[in-house]
Parts: sequence; C-alpha cells; structure tokens
Amino acid sequence: MTEAMAAAPLSRAELEVALRAIGAERYHNRHPFHRRLHGGDCSKSEVKAWALNRYFYQAMIPVKDAAILGSMPDPALRREWRRRIADHDGSAAGEGGIARWLALTDALGLDRDLVVSTRGILPGTRFAVEAYVAFCRTRPLLEAIAASLTELFSPALIGERVAGMLAHYDFVDAGALAYFAARPPQAAEDSAFALAYVLDHARTSEAQQAALAALRFKTDVLWAQLDALWLAYVDGRVPPGAWRPEP
Amino acid sequence: MTEAMAAAPLSRAELEVALRAIGAERYHNRHPFHRRLHGGDCSKSEVKAWALNRYFYQAMIPVKDAAILGSMPDPALRREWRRRIADHDGSAAGEGGIARWLALTDALGLDRDLVVSTRGILPGTRFAVEAYVAFCRTRPLLEAIAASLTELFSPALIGERVAGMLAHYDFVDAGALAYFAARPPQAAEDSAFALAYVLDHARTSEAQQAALAALRFKTDVLWAQLDALWLAYVDGRVPPGAWRPEP
Repeated sequence: MTEAMAAAPLSRAELEVALRAIGAERYHNRHPFHRRLHGGDCSKSEVKAWALNRYFYQAMIPVKDAAILGSMPDPALRREWRRRIADHDGSAAGEGGIARWLALTDALGLDRDLVVSTRGILPGTRFAVEAYVAFCRTRPLLEAIAASLTELFSPALIGERVAGMLAHYDFVDAGALAYFAARPPQAAEDSAFALAYVLDHARTSEAQQAALAALRFKTDVLWAQLDALWLAYVDGRVPPGAWRPEP
Repeated sequence: MTEAMAAAPLSRAELEVALRAIGAERYHNRHPFHRRLHGGDCSKSEVKAWALNRYFYQAMIPVKDAAILGSMPDPALRREWRRRIADHDGSAAGEGGIARWLALTDALGLDRDLVVSTRGILPGTRFAVEAYVAFCRTRPLLEAIAASLTELFSPALIGERVAGMLAHYDFVDAGALAYFAARPPQAAEDSAFALAYVLDHARTSEAQQAALAALRFKTDVLWAQLDALWLAYVDGRVPPGAWRPEP
C-alpha cells in the first residue's frame, strides 16, 4: 500500500484540484504534434495521417460508452450516459460526431472506404484505443467515468485547434471542421456530469487514487497516439502495413 | 469477402512460405532500433530503456501462454504448451526466462523493484503487450498459436544480438545475456510444434487468412514496442511518467 493510499481521503475540492493537475501536466495539448498541427507547421500529409488515425479513436468512443452503459445499474445514470452515444452516432445516417469526422477526412481527400476500414492506421493507434475500450469494459464504473475526464480539458484545446487550422491551412474550412464546432458544448456538459459523479463517489483514499490513476491512464492513451503519429509521419518512420502518403 | 478468402486453400507448403514471408517483411529484426542495438550504437541508457521495457513483454509471455492453455481441450496439447510456461517461470525462484531477464536488468544497474513494478515503462509498450495478451485470450486457438510463430525468426535475431552486444558494449557480459543463450533451442522447439499445428489445422482459405493475419498482428506488437522506444530514448521524447535516464 502506498503512502497516498494509507492517508486520509482528499476533500472534494482537493480531489478536483488533483484531477485538474493531471490535465495541466499530461493532457495532449502539450504534445509537440498538437503544437505543430495548430501552428500551421504540418504538411497536408501529416494532417491526413492525423485525421485517418484519429478516426479509429472517434469510431470507438461510442463502443467504450456502450461498455460503460452496460455496467450502470441505475436508469437515471444510463439516460445521462446514453446521450454520449447519440452525440457520436446521430439519429440517422450522416448525422453525429463520427459522420462529422468523415466530413473532415473527405475534405482532406482520404478515401472513405480506407478510413472506415481502419486498415491503414498505425498499430500504436490501434493498441492505445483498444486499451481504452478494454479499460472501460473491465474496470469499476468509477474508474471508467474518471477516465472520461480528459474532456474537462478539451474545449480549450479545440478552440485553439479550430482557430489555428483555419488560419494556417487552405485545405480545411469551417465545414471540414464541423466536428469541432459541435464538440465543446457536449464535452462541457459531459465532463461536468462526470466530474460531479467522481467527486461524489470517490470517498475513500483508495477510490480517489484509483480515479486519479484512471485519468492518468487516459492521458497516456491520448499521448501515445500522437507519439506514434510523430514517429511515423514527422520523422518519416512509417511501420510496415500502415498508410503511406503519396511521395 | 476478399478475393484471397474466396480463393482455394493454399497447400501446406504454400502456407508455410506465406507465413515465412511475413517474417521476412515485417519481423522486428528489420527495425532500426535493433540495428542500432546490435551495431554498438546505443548509449547505455538506451540499452537500459530497452531492457526495462522489454521486461514487461517477457513477464507477460507466460500470462498469454496460460490464456492459450486454457483454451486447449486436449491434454496432449496442453502438456506440450505447458512447457513454455515452465521455460519462463522456472521450477523455483531465480530460475527460468524471467529471472534471466532480471539478471540483464541487474547487470545494467536498473533497480529491480522498479523493473518488476513496470512503473517506468512506456505506455506504448504496455498497450502493445496487453493487446497481445487480449488477442490470445479472445481469438480462436489457431490464431493464438499462429501469433506465436514470430519465434520461427527469433533464433537468427538472437544470434546476431548476442554477438553484437558482446562485441560492442563493455557493460554486458555472457552472464548478463544468459537469457539469450537459453532461448534459441526453446524457440526452435516451440515454433516447430506451433508451425506444424498451424499447417495441420488451417485447412480452409478463411482459416489460413486468419492465421496469416494473426502473425501479421504479432509482428505489429513487436514493431510498435521498438517504435515507442525509438521516439522516447533515441529521439529523446520521453512521454509523461515514463522512466528517464539520469542526465
């Protein structure tokens, strides 16, 4: 047992501070790939590689949310969480977050069948995203909800992204970035609910440490995706079988 | 259904050729980190980072073999496969492949508690290795056995590694590399059995394609670990929370 686990539980306010500190230290807004993307230093091929790989993350979000839904015993909780799945899947073909992500990959000139097949993504992307889904399938509900708290930090990142990409890249416009216009209010609502849930339910020191570890794990999932992208497409070390930009 | 899946099954000899071709194209002996490691171009810190991260892979091998054992209905098959677990775990403390790996990390001056805790490993290592364990837990037995066939290619790699490391690094000796002295005959025996199993049991085109895909997946698992290592310790982009060499 670590010292932290043996200690008295944090207050609600202290736990919130500790959760937000993980964002400040480890959220992927600090990754050099994002600085490069938002600052206009990415080639079009790098932007395509990012959108292609990140599609798999987007596509698996409702799968992980369905896993979480399946471990919620309370209808009120499920009604709240179900909205996340609707946000991504929409209510008809062509609606929802995944469809909006495909508008981005379309605008970048990526073949839609290739994108949806996920054949060309990096193994590092696949392993990280699947680790997140497996985590939400197998860990206690509190930890799965705590892992979603990276959304506390996403509205600021998305604001910076949209402004930066529109200013710097002539191959994307507001239509291509529609996903990001829709996301911040959803993320703010989702993360306010999830934060309240974690603060209410992580009462023991052990539960609090588990919630903090879950959020740290999730920052690893996001960071590792950008690490894989950087090595393959900025450093040019594309692994066997992954998508290669036209020379 | 792809064309390959609709086609007639490969002959035994053709399937073996196709499996070996995956090794020739995608096995991690071709990764630049291995060329660097064996050619004497790694710093001691890079060798330490490699041994620290690879410990997690070594430690999880008997876990994945236990998962495979648990999906084998036949005592004769289980007797054969059980030997793999004994090879890694030994028959007493201090014996077996994992203990020999710890002799390497000891020789490199890594703290044994840090190594065994796996606290300092890269998220990319963790996600790749856990993907392999999950694959062997959830996929049909034929695919789990096919994924083990990277061992067909390991004796040559290990031979090159031991010669290269002894020639180039004064901080390792034959004792530190005892793991690699023991491995090639085990790997040759294990992979001969696994190859015969796959050739005997992959009779339909669909089963053969699944076996080939499983081996491709496994080469991704190995390659992704070296990709993560390269970005963190050759390029110097260590992700948050991972082990950092002393400056």
